[in-house]
Amino acid sequence: MDGELKFNLADYGEGALGQLEQAVNSNWTSGNGHFTKEVHAFFKAEFGLEGLLTHSCTAALEMMALLLDLQPGDEVIVPSFTFVSTATAFDLHGARLVFADSDPQYPNLSLDSIKAVVTERTKAVCVVHYAGAGHEMEEIRDWLAARDIVFLEDAAQAVGATYSTRSGATLPLGRWGAASSMSFHETKNVACGQGGALFIGRDDWKERSMALWEKGTNRQAFFLGLVDKYGWVDKGSSFLASDITAALLHSQLIRWKEIHERRMAIWNRYDAGLRPLEAEGRMACMRIPPNSGHNAHMYYLLLPGFEARAALMKHLKSLGIQSTFHYQSLHRSPYVLRTMGEQPDCPHSDRYSDGLLRLPLHLKLSDADVDRVIDGVRRFFTA
Amino acid sequence: MDGELKFNLADYGEGALGQLEQAVNSNWTSGNGHFTKEVHAFFKAEFGLEGLLTHSCTAALEMMALLLDLQPGDEVIVPSFTFVSTATAFDLHGARLVFADSDPQYPNLSLDSIKAVVTERTKAVCVVHYAGAGHEMEEIRDWLAARDIVFLEDAAQAVGATYSTRSGATLPLGRWGAASSMSFHETKNVACGQGGALFIGRDDWKERSMALWEKGTNRQAFFLGLVDKYGWVDKGSSFLASDITAALLHSQLIRWKEIHERRMAIWNRYDAGLRPLEAEGRMACMRIPPNSGHNAHMYYLLLPGFEARAALMKHLKSLGIQSTFHYQSLHRSPYVLRTMGEQPDCPHSDRYSDGLLRLPLHLKLSDADVDRVIDGVRRFFTA
Repeated sequence: MDGELKFNLADYGEGALGQLEQAVNSNWTSGNGHFTKEVHAFFKAEFGLEGLLTHSCTAALEMMALLLDLQPGDEVIVPSFTFVSTATAFDLHGARLVFADSDPQYPNLSLDSIKAVVTERTKAVCVVHYAGAGHEMEEIRDWLAARDIVFLEDAAQAVGATYSTRSGATLPLGRWGAASSMSFHETKNVACGQGGALFIGRDDWKERSMALWEKGTNRQAFFLGLVDKYGWVDKGSSFLASDITAALLHSQLIRWKEIHERRMAIWNRYDAGLRPLEAEGRMACMRIPPNSGHNAHMYYLLLPGFEARAALMKHLKSLGIQSTFHYQSLHRSPYVLRTMGEQPDCPHSDRYSDGLLRLPLHLKLSDADVDRVIDGVRRFFTA
Repeated sequence: MDGELKFNLADYGEGALGQLEQAVNSNWTSGNGHFTKEVHAFFKAEFGLEGLLTHSCTAALEMMALLLDLQPGDEVIVPSFTFVSTATAFDLHGARLVFADSDPQYPNLSLDSIKAVVTERTKAVCVVHYAGAGHEMEEIRDWLAARDIVFLEDAAQAVGATYSTRSGATLPLGRWGAASSMSFHETKNVACGQGGALFIGRDDWKERSMALWEKGTNRQAFFLGLVDKYGWVDKGSSFLASDITAALLHSQLIRWKEIHERRMAIWNRYDAGLRPLEAEGRMACMRIPPNSGHNAHMYYLLLPGFEARAALMKHLKSLGIQSTFHYQSLHRSPYVLRTMGEQPDCPHSDRYSDGLLRLPLHLKLSDADVDRVIDGVRRFFTA
């Protein structure tokens, strides 16, 4: 057996240490320093995304919750099949959570799954671009806009991904809603250990987002010359990231295209090797929603259930290949059951919880490594 | 004129880059990795403090607020003279804030200033160890304990500081309350850009604090083998710091005694040079409360008011010496006035807001630099 193939390996590359050294020696290692500004400039120039670097994607989601100015009884729709932060962030700041099911074809929400749970108290819908792919973005955006419901994007996995309208216009994910969050956790396409960003699409949220970011002070407005002194003006937290974090992230962003291209090559190699196995009907390969320009954040297989998935994981492990499942349906979590009681079923979310298996996908995989994984999966289904 | 003397300069020292390199290459750059555990172990071994590294001191204060399980109407007493986070953290999570005034002699709260504002709805008191010095710790602790009011410490500035009981027992600051927070912001004695820690003194808060830290999941309990699977079990956020942050902080902690000793030498040099000027009655030097083993976090002068302070700052600036004021009284801030209305006066807090001036204090100051500052101040008062 060759060495173990890890599910994820960070690849900070040659430039990272030099950037870190520059940050450490800059005498500005706290938030909102030189590299933070570089990160902001990068997202604006590359993707047209205007926003603020945060210590985590969770922080960005919490900022969205605060921007909503939630009143008692206000509902926020989130997927059941998502990372806890999509839900905890709104729960922590006063929302009544409502869980929507995944689309039958994709782990993402669909317009239908949103319609099924929307009420007169729905203040906002936060979709999650699962695996860095958008789904029914135009339909959802337009339907919510007509009802004055705020559209939010948890784009945690979606750096560099796009979605195209029916008329053929292509826009990065993160630019469709009133605000979006992104994650740079070590498992993401571009990473800095822990980090995130909040991007703002609504002009009337921009100034307020700066105050929330700077612990409820108008310090950022003061730096920008918009006010002549600063103090406590709003709710807020320390949502910033250190400039050390920003420096490490910047070293990744400046090579994001190289990262993106290599990930796409791995993704396409997996897909070419594994999709023929679908014909047997014992598993399904990951599907990309129509109009979606995904970012190869992950490659997953969908097994018929928990036991089949456990058997495949065990088989791959015996071959020295790490694979992993993903989220547990949040509508059935201990916290939700305790604080909100039994929730309506989300059968598709449960199906992804029980059957989805993620394969290794990172920059330290060679083509031969990918072929080894493909071969391992093939052997399971042909045994 | 020599080069400008900065108010603060970070000194990450020789070891920092090596630690960062080790963290970057470790394949665990997210939270709760190797260096996070090293930081936890350091605080336990060196100070008997048990707790969790956080992305900021603000995060630790918010965790305290969540641990209090605040109900509508519950009051939390905080100083008016403090950094906004001491107040925003409790405000954000449901407290009715009550502002207590500073002691006439020290910027800290006193037992009298707490007694003046305590009510039947007082759930907790969060004192701030201003300038890394505790004040009336034993008196406050015992008085609150007798009334079942939770005692919390914002020890943001207090790493390495101690306080002694009447019977002569000496305990680190951060170990007196039910919980305490610490900051490792770039301006602190030991620093990592942005960072903090929550320390827990109550056994019944320990398990819950781990869930809050890990986004409301029992992931940490799972790692420790206390439960056999993990999910969403509580409120929470991403309160962790990356292991990059932890590595940088660890490089400072392992030399904290050297840092502490050099800061104490600078502090004592300031004090010896400046205290004779008090006799003229035009300013007062910083006072250390009885029983307090301070950590030389800052050296400040107290001027009679805003104009005298502005004049001294301007004079020092003309000599190439940076100096800076500190907090604005929170009970008069725009946010408090807008959301809570006019508050009772805190005249001593206002006096520190208007008259307190901090002098440069960092490891890159030579004795000659300190003498230059002393001489600059002297010239102002003898002109």
